[in-house]
Amino acid sequence: MHNIAAFQAPKRLLMGPGPSDVAPSVLQAMSLPLVGHLDPVFVRMMEEIKAMLRQVFLTQNEMTFPVSGTGSAGMEFCFVNLIEPGDEVVVGVNGVFGGRMADVAARCGAKVHKVEAPWGRIIEPRQIAEALKTTRPKLVAIVHAETSTGALTPVEEISRLARDAGALMVLDTVTSLGGCPVKTDAWGIDAVYSATQKCLSCPPGLSPVSFSPRAMDVAAKRKTKAQSWYLDVNLLASYWGQERVYHHTAPISMNYALHEALRLVLASAPGKSFFAERRFGKNGTGPRLARRPSALATQCRERSHGRGRGQGPPAPVE
Amino acid sequence: MHNIAAFQAPKRLLMGPGPSDVAPSVLQAMSLPLVGHLDPVFVRMMEEIKAMLRQVFLTQNEMTFPVSGTGSAGMEFCFVNLIEPGDEVVVGVNGVFGGRMADVAARCGAKVHKVEAPWGRIIEPRQIAEALKTTRPKLVAIVHAETSTGALTPVEEISRLARDAGALMVLDTVTSLGGCPVKTDAWGIDAVYSATQKCLSCPPGLSPVSFSPRAMDVAAKRKTKAQSWYLDVNLLASYWGQERVYHHTAPISMNYALHEALRLVLASAPGKSFFAERRFGKNGTGPRLARRPSALATQCRERSHGRGRGQGPPAPVE
Repeated sequence: MHNIAAFQAPKRLLMGPGPSDVAPSVLQAMSLPLVGHLDPVFVRMMEEIKAMLRQVFLTQNEMTFPVSGTGSAGMEFCFVNLIEPGDEVVVGVNGVFGGRMADVAARCGAKVHKVEAPWGRIIEPRQIAEALKTTRPKLVAIVHAETSTGALTPVEEISRLARDAGALMVLDTVTSLGGCPVKTDAWGIDAVYSATQKCLSCPPGLSPVSFSPRAMDVAAKRKTKAQSWYLDVNLLASYWGQERVYHHTAPISMNYALHEALRLVLASAPGKSFFAERRFGKNGTGPRLARRPSALATQCRERSHGRGRGQGPPAPVE
Repeated sequence: MHNIAAFQAPKRLLMGPGPSDVAPSVLQAMSLPLVGHLDPVFVRMMEEIKAMLRQVFLTQNEMTFPVSGTGSAGMEFCFVNLIEPGDEVVVGVNGVFGGRMADVAARCGAKVHKVEAPWGRIIEPRQIAEALKTTRPKLVAIVHAETSTGALTPVEEISRLARDAGALMVLDTVTSLGGCPVKTDAWGIDAVYSATQKCLSCPPGLSPVSFSPRAMDVAAKRKTKAQSWYLDVNLLASYWGQERVYHHTAPISMNYALHEALRLVLASAPGKSFFAERRFGKNGTGPRLARRPSALATQCRERSHGRGRGQGPPAPVE
């Protein structure tokens, strides 16, 4: 039993809806020597990660950092901090991950109103508008790019509807961040989460998130403690903020990997001033789409958005 | 902004209460090529990790696996699955991490009875016996080795008291697992959690846990869903079990590291048949103590146990 052989990893070409291929320098970063989680050089690196994540999320939000878990932990981070028992929420469900959001919200004690679309279709703004006629939710949540089908729901109009109704806007960008423009501030998103292993081309293990000041205010003024200690944004703000109050031990090596992956993402079209235009071109799709087959072609198909608007169902990727 | 330099990790000797030094082969394992989270070779590796963790935890528990988060996520895993709102629990608090357990349990809706000892001292069995005279808790939880002081509380008698009172026994072994004997089955522990970055000498990022059949039964018969989707043992049992139902994307590279670290732990004294004796010697301390200064000498000082029994306070390590 105790003579199990060392693991031999085969070379795979990762083009499915799971993790993407990773650059050699990102893999190498994980084998750098370990430092302590409160070491000044690690703290400095945390600051650089936050700064680079703000560029990728196109946001000024101070509270932009990687949650120490995978994408679903980032999803849970958003809901446990913003929901208190009895709150009403509207959740768009057009695939696996919309369904998961509804489940997570219900476990936080929310009264969940599902707005559903067939798998492969997008959530239409008029569906959200309809739901907002009969409910006054604390938040509206949708999945930007549904990993399970490739459907890419346009966000801006839905976010405006949510704001007009006085609700927070929550966005799942697990499969879109780094692959499609995610304009957190321009679209008025209050809570956004992603994962490292899709279009950021980093191994799985961290979940980049960003909370707007409005979301931070809601979290700060809760009547009840967040039901998760591990994901409590008020505690995490002191660890990832300037105070550096010890919370948990961050996954050091995974943060090394994310630092390097973000460097590569931001360097992917140097010489222009605005990240989204650099990476995606002025029309928001750009040449990167064709060049990153593993993540983009299958997971974040801009065209499925068009299809979702009534031109026939797309082939699901799962 | 987007010309942040690649991170240069300095060489540190890690002897504090944070992460321990890691063997070169463990660091190298993380730079192996990425595979998918449902790849047959990864699934096979998951089985090997489970088998090796059972050896380290000295248990036959089927549900023995690494939670996809750091040690505090493992703590939360135990409480969110075993507690339902209104349940009474007894928690030993003799340092930072006992206090954290009490906080986490309260966030699950538990009525928490704290059994307290001064920092640096152990929790005495008679204190637990006293608490059990006036309450009928669903579980009793203590910290084996308090990272914040080095106090090593003996577990066996407290566990017997808990069982005799019809309670589940929960044990924090973040700093003890791999450094001191943790006899999960022999001591009758129902839920145990640890972390990779202490005496397993692996980077932080995963939390090995084990649930007894009794604990699994309690989780299966809950009236309410676990408040965490990410940490729901009933869902995780299908992912880490034989069904391999997709739950979340496991941190692939971190699991590579844990696989290699466990191999080294189990190979650390080859040629004898029983892990605890191989690693710690017949008297339960053994020569490894002196040879692993980073983790053991500071974090898991057997002597602080003696000190805690009235021979003067130990010097805290934090």
